[in-house]
Amino acid sequence: MGTSLNSNEIKQLLREGNFIKVVEILKDSHPVDIAELFSDLESQECLELFKKLEFGTARDVLEELEPEKVTFILTHIAPEEAALLLKEMSTDDLADYLGMLPESARQKFLHIMHQQEQNEIRSLLLYDENTAGGRMTTEFIAFPKDMKAKEALDKLAEIAPDAEMIYYVYVVDDGGKLLGVLSLRDLVLSEPDIPLSEIMYTDVKKVFATQDQEEVIRLMAKYGFLALPVVDENNVLLGIVTFDDVMDAAQEEATEDILKMAGASEEIAPEKTSPLFRARRRLPWILVALFGEIVSGNVIKNFSETLQAVVALSFFIPLLMDMGGNVGTQSAAIVVRGLAIGQIEPLLIWKNVIRESGVGAILGLINGAIVAAIAYLWQGAPALGLVIGLSMAMNLTIAAFLGTFIPLMWNRLGRDPAVTSGPFVTTLLDVIGLLVYFSTARLILRL
Amino acid sequence: MGTSLNSNEIKQLLREGNFIKVVEILKDSHPVDIAELFSDLESQECLELFKKLEFGTARDVLEELEPEKVTFILTHIAPEEAALLLKEMSTDDLADYLGMLPESARQKFLHIMHQQEQNEIRSLLLYDENTAGGRMTTEFIAFPKDMKAKEALDKLAEIAPDAEMIYYVYVVDDGGKLLGVLSLRDLVLSEPDIPLSEIMYTDVKKVFATQDQEEVIRLMAKYGFLALPVVDENNVLLGIVTFDDVMDAAQEEATEDILKMAGASEEIAPEKTSPLFRARRRLPWILVALFGEIVSGNVIKNFSETLQAVVALSFFIPLLMDMGGNVGTQSAAIVVRGLAIGQIEPLLIWKNVIRESGVGAILGLINGAIVAAIAYLWQGAPALGLVIGLSMAMNLTIAAFLGTFIPLMWNRLGRDPAVTSGPFVTTLLDVIGLLVYFSTARLILRL
Repeated sequence: MGTSLNSNEIKQLLREGNFIKVVEILKDSHPVDIAELFSDLESQECLELFKKLEFGTARDVLEELEPEKVTFILTHIAPEEAALLLKEMSTDDLADYLGMLPESARQKFLHIMHQQEQNEIRSLLLYDENTAGGRMTTEFIAFPKDMKAKEALDKLAEIAPDAEMIYYVYVVDDGGKLLGVLSLRDLVLSEPDIPLSEIMYTDVKKVFATQDQEEVIRLMAKYGFLALPVVDENNVLLGIVTFDDVMDAAQEEATEDILKMAGASEEIAPEKTSPLFRARRRLPWILVALFGEIVSGNVIKNFSETLQAVVALSFFIPLLMDMGGNVGTQSAAIVVRGLAIGQIEPLLIWKNVIRESGVGAILGLINGAIVAAIAYLWQGAPALGLVIGLSMAMNLTIAAFLGTFIPLMWNRLGRDPAVTSGPFVTTLLDVIGLLVYFSTARLILRL
Repeated sequence: MGTSLNSNEIKQLLREGNFIKVVEILKDSHPVDIAELFSDLESQECLELFKKLEFGTARDVLEELEPEKVTFILTHIAPEEAALLLKEMSTDDLADYLGMLPESARQKFLHIMHQQEQNEIRSLLLYDENTAGGRMTTEFIAFPKDMKAKEALDKLAEIAPDAEMIYYVYVVDDGGKLLGVLSLRDLVLSEPDIPLSEIMYTDVKKVFATQDQEEVIRLMAKYGFLALPVVDENNVLLGIVTFDDVMDAAQEEATEDILKMAGASEEIAPEKTSPLFRARRRLPWILVALFGEIVSGNVIKNFSETLQAVVALSFFIPLLMDMGGNVGTQSAAIVVRGLAIGQIEPLLIWKNVIRESGVGAILGLINGAIVAAIAYLWQGAPALGLVIGLSMAMNLTIAAFLGTFIPLMWNRLGRDPAVTSGPFVTTLLDVIGLLVYFSTARLILRL
């Protein structure tokens, strides 16, 4: 029931030159919907419509548009108006936009801004976009600790139109150090002349600007905050990350993890992307797997005499490969997601590895027993059953071990654990699994 | 920097009987942190500490605690106090808690509540917990359309302590039908005696109570709302879903998808869960895969004469199986996540299937060519290269086709697409892949 705009209807109206009707429809629409409509229209049409929007709406739409459209619009309207829009955009969206531009275009836009805003934006541009600093806005509300509740409320009403988040008020000392936080609700419910220092919460949850956004997401989800303050190493308040940016970040992080684990690229390609481009983005991991599986093939080749002596060994290759891959992927998924939501302590590598290996061993014993029985009943050879049951038990234990160890180790090295948890683990487990299988066979069947 | 409570320190203080110090520490702590501490303590210790908390904090802690602890506390404090706590808990958290209790305990608690609250809770209990209705709270703020801005602000200050979300005000007609919405910020910035109908937004995004929470998450993330109204089929406002519940829901949905795709269970087991229990939760898909791969083994068995004639065919089994699984998993991951974030239109099954199959065909041709070349150079047999290259091209196309088609179809049938996208697709592709491979070999090598 997101009653989005009907872009076909609007295109029809534009073709008929019925601008008045379109502007009337847009007047009642949400900026996000208008931005969505714009992405379906030609740049020139966007520009025409954009000029007809109210200033506040125009600014909000700009914050949601693709960078190409933003640049087109900003360079085709009066420079004074462009400067005003840039000034009024929220600093985090503006920094995101400018960060995507080539250096020359970025400098051009920065130059039409006031000195103070320029400095703010330049400082935001220094942070990696996936850190707290990269997600924060500098438009927060901070008051001194001896300000009275009533004063704070009046001041709030005055600056509300410019602030990104008026529902949280931060309390700082003269040096800008963060002392406490209170909500608009606390202010409304307080005695008018009580100083902020007496009603503020001092147990403030906060993040450093350089911390990964996953920590921001984790804290916001855990405590249900509307915003989280971002500080430097001296506890000076630099900015806030607001819930809407965190919702977006959380969705992006989850998408990234899911796709990386499947060995696809980090984002879902938009509707219009060509199959050739889509294929190119998925190729790298496929090629890694390809060369890994050539190694698997080599293992089989090295044991081809064993295989020719007992052809039935080949019937169980798919079973062993697939089961190892499954258990490894399960373990890796549990680690990757457990790390993301903060349920797994990243430093307790061995504790987690040992526990998961235990789970793998249990799964291995159960499945090994079932598979040994099946092999015996199917092929009528008890020794073959023993080979397959034993290899299965060993393989699933190894799979759980590596499926846990590799992403945890990768994470400890400061890299993204999701990368290692899909095709990489599966391919590695195939090679190891086949080695274990044929070595066991050679040993037990004395080939 | 979520400066959580140090539970070892607190346990030490409790052992020393230093209750006063503990209560002092808890006084400044966030309810979420207190609840986290409680989960490490014995029920009796929790009860002692709980009794010392301020009423507001006690209620907030209760909303965050595990159901067992809540029940223990509620049945060990004075019944009047329990009734008061139940009355003051937010209705969605209370309904979640009561929903987890056995029928008899639920009735007992419902009986100590007032009639009106009883009715509210009973109506919330009717919705599935993964729907908008299951996630909503009935503590929203709704005003008539001719109320003046100043009146609304005064009224708001009065009811603020009880409302779950005071930053959004909904405007309804006499029958409770939703007409519009405005933010506290809009109210603060308005002329005092303008009626709400003139400042409200009428393009209200909303959901039906029976809609899946994924739609709620999608809309909230898209528009960055603090809350989303939930209506019945007559547009009567029933409740609101707030951003903090949606953050939780989004994290849960992502975790669920990731684990289901890996064929593990739907949640990450808490720290203390035993390996045996963990193993049991992961066993079902492993067993499905086991029996699927017995079928794969049977395919190889049926072609064992072919295999014995050309042993080199076996060297490429891991390669073909793994690559098919990889491409299938990539496609499935893109579909599952694309559906979750609303980037894939669920009804355009064929459009998506055809496009993905195109991607699969491109990947198949590239890899087929590489693999054919490798097979030729490695084994010196051009016909073998042809067999492997062709099978690879066919398999990757089929993998992309099924990896897209199965989850989309499953989704269309109203089931969770993530379930079909892990071990199920991989196992199916193994069977099909081997059939394609050996059939091609028999045909081309004329065996």
